[in-house]
Amino acid sequence: MEKEQNIQNESSLQDGLALDEEETEDIAEQIQDLVEQDNQQAAIELLSQFRPGDQGEVIEELPIETQQEILTTLPPKEAAEILEHLEPEDVAKVSEGVDSSVLSDILDEADSDITADILRQLPEEQAQDVLGEMEEAAEVIPLLQYPDDSAGGRMILEYLVVKDYATTADTLDTLRQQEPEVKDIRSVFVVDAEEHLVGELSVARLALARPKTMVRDIMDSDIIFVTSETNQEECARVMEHYNLYQLPVVDKDRRLVGVIRSEDIIDVIEEEATEDMYKLAGIPGERVFGPLSISMRNRLPWLSINLITTFLAALVISIFESTIARVVTLAVFLPVVAGQGGIGGTQTLTLVVRSMALGEISRRGGFRLLGREISLGLIHGILLGVAVAVVAFIWKGNYMLGAVLGMAMVGNMVIAGLTGAGIPLLLTRLRIDPAVASAVVVTTCTDVVGFFLFLGLATALVSFLI
Amino acid sequence: MEKEQNIQNESSLQDGLALDEEETEDIAEQIQDLVEQDNQQAAIELLSQFRPGDQGEVIEELPIETQQEILTTLPPKEAAEILEHLEPEDVAKVSEGVDSSVLSDILDEADSDITADILRQLPEEQAQDVLGEMEEAAEVIPLLQYPDDSAGGRMILEYLVVKDYATTADTLDTLRQQEPEVKDIRSVFVVDAEEHLVGELSVARLALARPKTMVRDIMDSDIIFVTSETNQEECARVMEHYNLYQLPVVDKDRRLVGVIRSEDIIDVIEEEATEDMYKLAGIPGERVFGPLSISMRNRLPWLSINLITTFLAALVISIFESTIARVVTLAVFLPVVAGQGGIGGTQTLTLVVRSMALGEISRRGGFRLLGREISLGLIHGILLGVAVAVVAFIWKGNYMLGAVLGMAMVGNMVIAGLTGAGIPLLLTRLRIDPAVASAVVVTTCTDVVGFFLFLGLATALVSFLI
Repeated sequence: MEKEQNIQNESSLQDGLALDEEETEDIAEQIQDLVEQDNQQAAIELLSQFRPGDQGEVIEELPIETQQEILTTLPPKEAAEILEHLEPEDVAKVSEGVDSSVLSDILDEADSDITADILRQLPEEQAQDVLGEMEEAAEVIPLLQYPDDSAGGRMILEYLVVKDYATTADTLDTLRQQEPEVKDIRSVFVVDAEEHLVGELSVARLALARPKTMVRDIMDSDIIFVTSETNQEECARVMEHYNLYQLPVVDKDRRLVGVIRSEDIIDVIEEEATEDMYKLAGIPGERVFGPLSISMRNRLPWLSINLITTFLAALVISIFESTIARVVTLAVFLPVVAGQGGIGGTQTLTLVVRSMALGEISRRGGFRLLGREISLGLIHGILLGVAVAVVAFIWKGNYMLGAVLGMAMVGNMVIAGLTGAGIPLLLTRLRIDPAVASAVVVTTCTDVVGFFLFLGLATALVSFLI
Repeated sequence: MEKEQNIQNESSLQDGLALDEEETEDIAEQIQDLVEQDNQQAAIELLSQFRPGDQGEVIEELPIETQQEILTTLPPKEAAEILEHLEPEDVAKVSEGVDSSVLSDILDEADSDITADILRQLPEEQAQDVLGEMEEAAEVIPLLQYPDDSAGGRMILEYLVVKDYATTADTLDTLRQQEPEVKDIRSVFVVDAEEHLVGELSVARLALARPKTMVRDIMDSDIIFVTSETNQEECARVMEHYNLYQLPVVDKDRRLVGVIRSEDIIDVIEEEATEDMYKLAGIPGERVFGPLSISMRNRLPWLSINLITTFLAALVISIFESTIARVVTLAVFLPVVAGQGGIGGTQTLTLVVRSMALGEISRRGGFRLLGREISLGLIHGILLGVAVAVVAFIWKGNYMLGAVLGMAMVGNMVIAGLTGAGIPLLLTRLRIDPAVASAVVVTTCTDVVGFFLFLGLATALVSFLI
């Protein structure tokens, strides 16, 4: 056991940080060995030395049968804490074949938003069975009606509510009775007699106030909230904008129905950023060590669409085949035209898509942005155009070749700015996610227009090129 | 005034959300008009109707002189709340020319981490003057020694410490005296007689415990912490991993020196994701409506490097100019070869760079990843290779052209997988930021190898192509 102790000391005392991937794999191997030797007790003892976040990472490394064995052997509360750190779809995979009564005991101990996430991923029938045996079913069922990516899907129900017409002494008494239900309270929400959200009150302030003070006199009534339908990205934006550590969620009558915590929204922000990045690169939903078949399903559509569009570019070139036959050197410069247009378009596109996601571009700002990017394209096009013209002239000794290439570069970079900004703006108006569809349209436009300009000009001026 | 009232009602009551860009611009215009009519009082009253987060957005839309006028006219506490929502470099710009005594009054009211951020951006001399006049200088000076992107630079000093050997009653008494200093307490940290961090205790638990209980008996002693040198990305990762709402920061002797809150780390995560995305696209540090000259400085280096690499690709083609002269159709398929390789490389590269940033790839995982991506490249290459071979055969009626194109595609996609995963892994070992430098190397490799394979094979088999 000395070695394991060692690993834990290093990670939790020396730097207070998470286990790294290697330590995680080592511990998973040791646990797997113990389980194979039928020494479940020692396996669980070893696992228990770590924190739930790390336990989750270790569990993920184990074969599914071992995962099931461990999670069902652990006390439900500990199992729940581990589940909270796994991806809901992974939990659903482990849960298949686990007895409903065991699973319901575990989920009763988990945060309500996570329980709802997991139930959404389970097969319909199993979810019904589990819900039927859960003590907290009444709390979780309302959450299941909200989409996963809405405020309703992200909120938790573990919060405390007090009345605005109560005294602080009575309120503290009430809270003392409720306390075991709620871990880690920071502040409580205040509602009026009709259950409408009217304010917020920090427990510290409550604890330190005079006993006879009315809640409504010390509460903070300038409260920011969202409705249960609000998209999770919007919630993240609001919490970031106002620097909130919790965000109350209300129904359409402004009655409090849940709360989103800032530590939970961190996942949302990280996931949304990753999602946008992956969509732009044509790998939506990809995971780095997922099964190959899923990676193929994620990437092939994009590769195939791109293949069709490169044939469009090929078609443009084939129109000018006779010109190329007369001036073969033109073929040499095709990647220069395509490459620069592609890079310029990607630069603008990435900036615009990310800024839109961050809420930095208003409806009115779109035209300003378009003008700005076209201007930049023109400036860059002229600078790069002169550069390529000079290089092409020096290399091939034909000034007209340089001029044609330079002019194509100017046109190409303008198109890059126009489409790089215009396509995502247009797609957003059409309510299509700009991250998914923009890149392929932009590169196709720059390729097709670039080749057309370059080879078209060359055809018109072919007598100067020979 | 009716219209302004209307705007506020809509935003704060109807949906509880932030002002959108258009509303922000409207309000900024109204404020500018009022200031120009020398009606500062009305301008400030109008601004005061909104929340600090929104006030910050409005202020950003105003000319710098108006910003100065408003911030110096507001009560220091309100000005400080607005500053907390602006970018530190913007604050520094506004602060130039503002009297040191006014600025020090405002900064005395701001969170210590933000004060430090702002002071770092000010000219040396002005920063010294302001610090000299600040009441809280002693608190802020230690923060200035830490880099902006370390735990030390992100932490705040507004937290409460209690002794592990005190009773809960005494502790509450002590806290009652300190209360006005700290807004929004959630939990307090527990230190031993030597000031070492030994635990954490929620105020709720403290308030609800029996008076004679010792703090050490109810505190949570399994506490996760970082040191002041820890990088902010690492802090964000730890907070996300363990789902923390605050993260204590200690010095090398485990003495508590500050705390990072989850609402502050949200900015870090959003910024880091944006930064990685922009670096990959070759627009590091770009801002969507910044000055054109800065955009050019951000984008031109990347465009220029890319230009050089496309000429490398052009050089490869020029080696085979005589083959193209004999089989002009080869030129038509050049964008197909380059385009597919580029997309495949970008897919792998984006996945790998993002996963590395998220800490999902261990040292040992690198080789597994490399193998995985090469396999995927091979599979995709074969599938796409067959597709292009068939299309090329049908279009141009030459089976060998199809075969050559298909084989080049296989090689190209394997190289895309190899470099897309290998280059960022290699750069990381060399301690070079993979987000900055990878993309250009990967596309150059796929272009050069792709053209070499395609045209090389065509040259070897040229007799079958005519």
